[in-house]
Amino acid sequence: MDDPQVTRRPVTRVADGAFARDLDAIAVERALEIRIGGRALAVTLRTPGHDPELALGFLAGEGLIANAADVLEVRDHAAPCADQPDAVELMLAPRVVVDWSRLERHFAATSACGLCGRAHLESLRAGLEPQPAGPPVGAAGLAALPARLRGAQQAFRLTGGLHAAAWCDAGLAPRVVREDVGRHNAVDKVAGWLLREGRYPAREGLLWVSGRAGAEIVLKAARARIPVLAAVGAPSSLAIELAEAAGMTLAGFVREGRMNLYCGAERITAG
Amino acid sequence: MDDPQVTRRPVTRVADGAFARDLDAIAVERALEIRIGGRALAVTLRTPGHDPELALGFLAGEGLIANAADVLEVRDHAAPCADQPDAVELMLAPRVVVDWSRLERHFAATSACGLCGRAHLESLRAGLEPQPAGPPVGAAGLAALPARLRGAQQAFRLTGGLHAAAWCDAGLAPRVVREDVGRHNAVDKVAGWLLREGRYPAREGLLWVSGRAGAEIVLKAARARIPVLAAVGAPSSLAIELAEAAGMTLAGFVREGRMNLYCGAERITAG
Repeated sequence: MDDPQVTRRPVTRVADGAFARDLDAIAVERALEIRIGGRALAVTLRTPGHDPELALGFLAGEGLIANAADVLEVRDHAAPCADQPDAVELMLAPRVVVDWSRLERHFAATSACGLCGRAHLESLRAGLEPQPAGPPVGAAGLAALPARLRGAQQAFRLTGGLHAAAWCDAGLAPRVVREDVGRHNAVDKVAGWLLREGRYPAREGLLWVSGRAGAEIVLKAARARIPVLAAVGAPSSLAIELAEAAGMTLAGFVREGRMNLYCGAERITAG
Repeated sequence: MDDPQVTRRPVTRVADGAFARDLDAIAVERALEIRIGGRALAVTLRTPGHDPELALGFLAGEGLIANAADVLEVRDHAAPCADQPDAVELMLAPRVVVDWSRLERHFAATSACGLCGRAHLESLRAGLEPQPAGPPVGAAGLAALPARLRGAQQAFRLTGGLHAAAWCDAGLAPRVVREDVGRHNAVDKVAGWLLREGRYPAREGLLWVSGRAGAEIVLKAARARIPVLAAVGAPSSLAIELAEAAGMTLAGFVREGRMNLYCGAERITAG
């Protein structure tokens, strides 16, 4: 198998007390280091593939870069051995100033695994601007998205172990779908694709996620100026508060022809 | 409603082109700051409830404390207003030395939201010791756990928006079940409960999680010396590698009377 997102592992399948040896398809999770000018900014556990997009989307979501012109070069390094992280090395334009001490203070104060960062509300809300109204979105087309996107979730179909995120244009056509063991990574990969396409900030369209809508996902959509966030799963209370503050539409439980609209319902039409 | 884990929000329910206003039950997500001796260690977005356990479990998972005697006092502070984080303030025993500069370097180098930290493989593997063999676990009892634990997931039943984690003793009796919008937080709350009960490290029993088994969950189980990890969802490749390195049993897709054993199958019996 050439797919870097999926590997095979031996498994003992147990059903009704019977044990059977088999091979199972498993979602790959590996470390990736994001470097700027040779200096490590962050390390993530991600599913390989579209790593430059992941790095670009992460930087854009953090407000470090605003568009593709802020990045002079992106290099993708596969690790020489399994015990070392892969790496993406970025060269930023000279005008882009990275305040490392601010970043380190920020990460030190607000992040820790399981203790997911970005949590002070003032910093959560910083930079939220009202989103463009955008053209209305038909509820029927929106509710049909999960079924329409299912075919694009190839690694999930094999492994059952990946999240997906997609950006659809104003006509609800899916333009990019990305998968990752980390749901934030999947969203960063979509944001990085938008950036490379010269579409960041997007100012239109819809971000679809295969799982739940937490506060972090709303923030990433708001910073990418995507006016509508549609999640297959449930939203959290803070996700709703932030989406309201950003003037976004937040739809949850988008599946089987139904959905719940938690804010911004005026963008959604019955058609 | 007095439940701090669930709130009510207005919702527009859309089905078959019809729009109806209603109230929906939503999982609460709020910021919590963990402080040691007045200094902020980390901020997390979590579902309120069992915050001291969350803080204790987080510290134990990071290797900062080894048992309940390392903590002199735990104080729980509700935020005075909605825009500020809640806080848990810990006083550690004088013998517990916190190396803040190491922690800050560690967090700065390895974490970033969506870019979940702890990712350098050498640090991932550090401190993994072979887990105790423990008594054998019957496959039938293990496969029946999700149905048995469903009744304890009260906030999930209302909102559809929470992860759960549980620790079951060697006889597979569930002893503690915790829910949170963050799956790592749910596991930290379970670890904190073990610590308060004088059962950390556990050296027996089973950690059950309602979602997927990623590398971070395996690490938290290994550090708590829980020999068996059972997940309703899929494992990742790195989760399997780390569970193997720790001599743990890793079961995935534990549902509907079936499961897949990815390593440590010798602990599971047909009975």
